[in-house]
Amino acid sequence: MDAYQKLENHFAKITRLNEIQSIVAWDEAVVMPEGGSESRNQAMAELSGIVHELSTSPQIGDWIESCSVEKLNEWQQANLREIKRLYIQRASIPADLNRHLVVAKMECEQKWRVARQANDWKTFAPALQKVLDLTREMLQALGQKLNLAPYDAALDMHSPGLNSKTVEALFSDIRSFLPHMIGHALDRQKNKNIIEPRGHFPMAAQKALAQELMLALGFSKNNGRLDESHHPFCGGTPRDVRITTRYRDHEFFSSLMGVLHETGHALYEQNLPDQWLHQPVGAACGMSIHESQSLFMEMQICRSPEFLAMAAPLIHKHLKPHVENPESLNPENLANLATIVKRGLIRVDADEVTYPAHVILRFEIEKDMINGKLALKELPEVWNEKMEQLLGLSTVGNDKDGCMQDVHWPSGAFGYFPAYTFGAVIAAQLFAQMEKQNPQARHQISQGEFAKIQSWLKENVWSHGSKMTTVELVNRASKPVSAQDFQQHLQRRYLS
Amino acid sequence: MDAYQKLENHFAKITRLNEIQSIVAWDEAVVMPEGGSESRNQAMAELSGIVHELSTSPQIGDWIESCSVEKLNEWQQANLREIKRLYIQRASIPADLNRHLVVAKMECEQKWRVARQANDWKTFAPALQKVLDLTREMLQALGQKLNLAPYDAALDMHSPGLNSKTVEALFSDIRSFLPHMIGHALDRQKNKNIIEPRGHFPMAAQKALAQELMLALGFSKNNGRLDESHHPFCGGTPRDVRITTRYRDHEFFSSLMGVLHETGHALYEQNLPDQWLHQPVGAACGMSIHESQSLFMEMQICRSPEFLAMAAPLIHKHLKPHVENPESLNPENLANLATIVKRGLIRVDADEVTYPAHVILRFEIEKDMINGKLALKELPEVWNEKMEQLLGLSTVGNDKDGCMQDVHWPSGAFGYFPAYTFGAVIAAQLFAQMEKQNPQARHQISQGEFAKIQSWLKENVWSHGSKMTTVELVNRASKPVSAQDFQQHLQRRYLS
Repeated sequence: MDAYQKLENHFAKITRLNEIQSIVAWDEAVVMPEGGSESRNQAMAELSGIVHELSTSPQIGDWIESCSVEKLNEWQQANLREIKRLYIQRASIPADLNRHLVVAKMECEQKWRVARQANDWKTFAPALQKVLDLTREMLQALGQKLNLAPYDAALDMHSPGLNSKTVEALFSDIRSFLPHMIGHALDRQKNKNIIEPRGHFPMAAQKALAQELMLALGFSKNNGRLDESHHPFCGGTPRDVRITTRYRDHEFFSSLMGVLHETGHALYEQNLPDQWLHQPVGAACGMSIHESQSLFMEMQICRSPEFLAMAAPLIHKHLKPHVENPESLNPENLANLATIVKRGLIRVDADEVTYPAHVILRFEIEKDMINGKLALKELPEVWNEKMEQLLGLSTVGNDKDGCMQDVHWPSGAFGYFPAYTFGAVIAAQLFAQMEKQNPQARHQISQGEFAKIQSWLKENVWSHGSKMTTVELVNRASKPVSAQDFQQHLQRRYLS
Repeated sequence: MDAYQKLENHFAKITRLNEIQSIVAWDEAVVMPEGGSESRNQAMAELSGIVHELSTSPQIGDWIESCSVEKLNEWQQANLREIKRLYIQRASIPADLNRHLVVAKMECEQKWRVARQANDWKTFAPALQKVLDLTREMLQALGQKLNLAPYDAALDMHSPGLNSKTVEALFSDIRSFLPHMIGHALDRQKNKNIIEPRGHFPMAAQKALAQELMLALGFSKNNGRLDESHHPFCGGTPRDVRITTRYRDHEFFSSLMGVLHETGHALYEQNLPDQWLHQPVGAACGMSIHESQSLFMEMQICRSPEFLAMAAPLIHKHLKPHVENPESLNPENLANLATIVKRGLIRVDADEVTYPAHVILRFEIEKDMINGKLALKELPEVWNEKMEQLLGLSTVGNDKDGCMQDVHWPSGAFGYFPAYTFGAVIAAQLFAQMEKQNPQARHQISQGEFAKIQSWLKENVWSHGSKMTTVELVNRASKPVSAQDFQQHLQRRYLS
């Protein structure tokens, strides 16, 4: 067996064990009784240990060196590139440093849970400092191997191929029009009469509605499920995708949009290339592209007036018996509900117009944190300043809704935030390009016909797995990343 | 670290990975969408491979040899004994033979599924012959290492410490009174007016009823769940026990009794000793004792008139709105329903009086198959003969309801069947002994008070894990295994 084949076998094994981890993680979030958690944690630690050992085995390095690249076809070459990337990511961090980082992140997350509730920055800061210090050390080591600056190494971990220069260029464009646009959108909104649906919406009815729309968008029931969990997510494996959501009795719309968002993630996973299913090249291409697929479904399609016109009769069918003000379920009002703009402190509650402000703020701050230009003690103040600039809101004395609101930094996920806004921008670009080639797209949406849109996505995104990097994939499917289509999308939806 | 400690660490790792396998197997049976199965099989094969490698590692043999037994306490010595037993079971079968056996069993099970439906013994026989030949070879190898005859090695695999002599003695006692007793019970039954409940019983109502009774018996909701699957089972892990059942719309009683049977298994698992949770000595003590716990709950407790008098108001509460003939839910009628005797061909549908006949038949046949005294081509004929002797029924031309009805032989589980009847006999002995020490037991049951019965079981069975072998555990908790208490139990319930 040649070296490349050995690598494929080894990574198939790792991927399969990752699938087991993923299913068991779903079980923990969705069905495990509380008393099972201690044993479960031990069992998962055992399996993670095995996967970590396999992923960092020095054999991998030897096999990579012995590969005859010229004998490999295009897909195999891309697979080798991904294997290298993963191996460097996992094996180039000294074992001691890695151990310390794992402990520091765990401790910081635990502190965060308590301190956030208590709005207690002072207790939290030292734990975050430790994570930051070790993360910087880790990114230094990683960056050296990858020939990247530390923050670029962080970006590359979550969105392969993304770097600070690309992010800065895009975000400075968005920053130039966004605050102004938010103001305009809010002004325009004042003239709208938006009716909140009132009623008690039973879980079974909400779920039946969500499932009907998921299936309409192309979700394969044969390869996935919809369940309930405290924090909604899309997990499982490419051929067994597990979406979860949370239902509220008094309000159905945000859970419904949540399910349709996760459906975008699910469609990507379900349509990854069959023949590379258990190889790194067969996996989804990083978080920016993944988020572009969920936002393509949620923002480009499902919050559009065309989609909501199509969905309104289904929403009526499932929820009419439970709603007190049926006029709130009319297509026009649903479209208004789907596009409410509101300045707020909390990122996860933000609409698509204000969302980039939250991300830009975090990007500017975390880049400086990693590059050593921002001392942690200044964080609350800097956060507040940027919040005032971008959204005109203050977080003075309110760190729990300011710099302590996200789990990302306590858990060491620096370099992740930009993926949210890249996802939104890429989704807009993909939709614009798709519409050029399929001018009837909006009409199709209004008729509930998604076949052509699906096949465009399959051809241009889903079927490529990780064959290309983030930037290459976007370039090939549409054009170099820029704010243009995203801005036009917002203008069309909120200002015209 | 000394050798014994290394063994503990190694087996803790194996046990934890087994727990993962168990949860993922539950997932497959209960929630996995069909399209996930191919990837799932591959992932599970990967994990099994790792567990198999760990379980057969020659290091284990070295560590066992280096253990200083005199330094170990009683529990540790028992743990070492179990570790040895498991290691010999897994490692003394030549790797090649094991591989062939795995394939043969898989192929035979697949053939069986089709051939059984078609009542096609001729197509099925060669596949079973292959499994039988390889199993005999395997048991020969195992028996040599354990100094046991091949069939005794098979018994010991499923019920540690059980041997042919013990089984023969018990079964010849039962055989001496059973056919006669069945006749009597049937005669007596003729005078009873048994009313089948009629109605549509919604799953939610059946489930709520089952859960209420499970909790009354002591099932910990914090350490387990009740779900639905095609084949009911009790799986999961000791601190996260997963019971499943199947509900029929027109008939609730058999599913309810099924849940209460599985609750017996679950109580055993949930109450295994905390401090040995991830060691072989902390596991349940083989299938005979496990079955004794499910049958203690189902047969000794839940089918008793005392229990059904207590349960009747709860059954009313949940099912009254759905039953057409409410008089069928009266305590006396429920007790009659719980004790219907019927001669039948199918073991899994048998009542507790006729059940041992099914097991004795299989024991006599499989012992001769393993010992080479019965050629496979004679199986249908011998089956029919014994069926006529024991139950007065014929299976001529009906092998699908005769020697082809069970999955055990196609899947290589020779030596398993006796555990069912040992379980029933041990349950009767344990109940009789418990009642001696707690003469108010039946009254407590009628009041729904299970605390004293639970603590007796905890003290005498649950808390011992695998510290003793099957036979030792029964001797210590009651007396040497004999048919006496079982016979008295049947006489009291069916003939008095």
